[in-house]
Amino acid sequence: MKIHDWPTGPYPARVRIALAEKNLQSRVRFVTVDLRRGEHKKPEFLAKNYSGTLPVLELDDGTFLAECTAITEYLDALDGAPTLTGRTPREKGLIHMMSKRAELELLDAISVYFHQATPGLGPDVEIYQNAEWGFHQRDKAVRGMHYFDGILKTQPFVAGEAFSMADITVIGGLIFAGLVKLPVPAECEALQAWYKGMLERPSVRDRVAMSEPTGAPA
Amino acid sequence: MKIHDWPTGPYPARVRIALAEKNLQSRVRFVTVDLRRGEHKKPEFLAKNYSGTLPVLELDDGTFLAECTAITEYLDALDGAPTLTGRTPREKGLIHMMSKRAELELLDAISVYFHQATPGLGPDVEIYQNAEWGFHQRDKAVRGMHYFDGILKTQPFVAGEAFSMADITVIGGLIFAGLVKLPVPAECEALQAWYKGMLERPSVRDRVAMSEPTGAPA
Repeated sequence: MKIHDWPTGPYPARVRIALAEKNLQSRVRFVTVDLRRGEHKKPEFLAKNYSGTLPVLELDDGTFLAECTAITEYLDALDGAPTLTGRTPREKGLIHMMSKRAELELLDAISVYFHQATPGLGPDVEIYQNAEWGFHQRDKAVRGMHYFDGILKTQPFVAGEAFSMADITVIGGLIFAGLVKLPVPAECEALQAWYKGMLERPSVRDRVAMSEPTGAPA
Repeated sequence: MKIHDWPTGPYPARVRIALAEKNLQSRVRFVTVDLRRGEHKKPEFLAKNYSGTLPVLELDDGTFLAECTAITEYLDALDGAPTLTGRTPREKGLIHMMSKRAELELLDAISVYFHQATPGLGPDVEIYQNAEWGFHQRDKAVRGMHYFDGILKTQPFVAGEAFSMADITVIGGLIFAGLVKLPVPAECEALQAWYKGMLERPSVRDRVAMSEPTGAPA
């Protein structure tokens, strides 16, 4: 399998963490798509992923799978343990809900802020910007941090009692927050403590180290 | 189980179609949340779903599951046949990818247009609007129709050879398009032919009949 991505991107981090948790890294080869040059918006890449986002998993039969949730579902279904997307109907439902919520309320909101209300990837890539919408999404993301703080006051992981895809999505959000210098509020102590715990996982520590601002795509 | 929803809403339609396809309707009771009065944005409902969106599935143990994809995963995992979210890793990946793409490029884009650039649910509910962003999303949705038209020129269903959650998400998009009077372009013949076929499924026909503009939430 091949993964088309940009090594320090927050969305690519989600799949790289999932791969490491599943111990599947040796089965993929990485192909760099240069975000800074806008390669992900050019026809050659859009033929692989209409939405023009990274990462994309290319299967050995030539199928292209985009969207982190879809790629994680694929990887998780390849074998049994550990599971990232749940075993029972209730676990599957909760993990998908919390992962989607982490996109809506945190990660995707920060991405919109980055692309709409900051220089983003530069004028050649950001050909349309709506700064007001971007700032609106930034404020939503800060509220989202408070929401996840409240969740993590009551349970050890984002979707309950076990590490899952939902934790990975929140990690993606906090990686992106670091890149755009949107700090987790000091009062979000449970979110900060959970993140400290996440950074002790090798899968996460390696990703976050790569995504430090010095390695940022912008 | 209970489903908290608004009977004619495009997102509620996704779960109602899934329920009908799985023949699980008899196991749920519907509770109406009055969109027109903004009940979905009030504290009592936000305690059930932080994001303030419909539908929400309430399990018998009191767990609330929001987000259509998560609810569909839950329902699909309750039993084996028919499957809406795939059996093999590749099917799961493709269905999740295409369903997410149908949200990004069609359904969610139309929803943003509705809430940001039209009167939406009225001034008491739409307390923030960014019309420029709304029109930008409307144009994205029209491009999305052309994208799905291209897909349906080459295969019978949105994610391949079988009906799935991804078809349901595109149906939700076309229901919402009808509500906001955003017609499928005449040249999108494959998309129109596919939709005609979808309307022959009882699960879909009943929903679309309910969601005619006369029954629209606005």
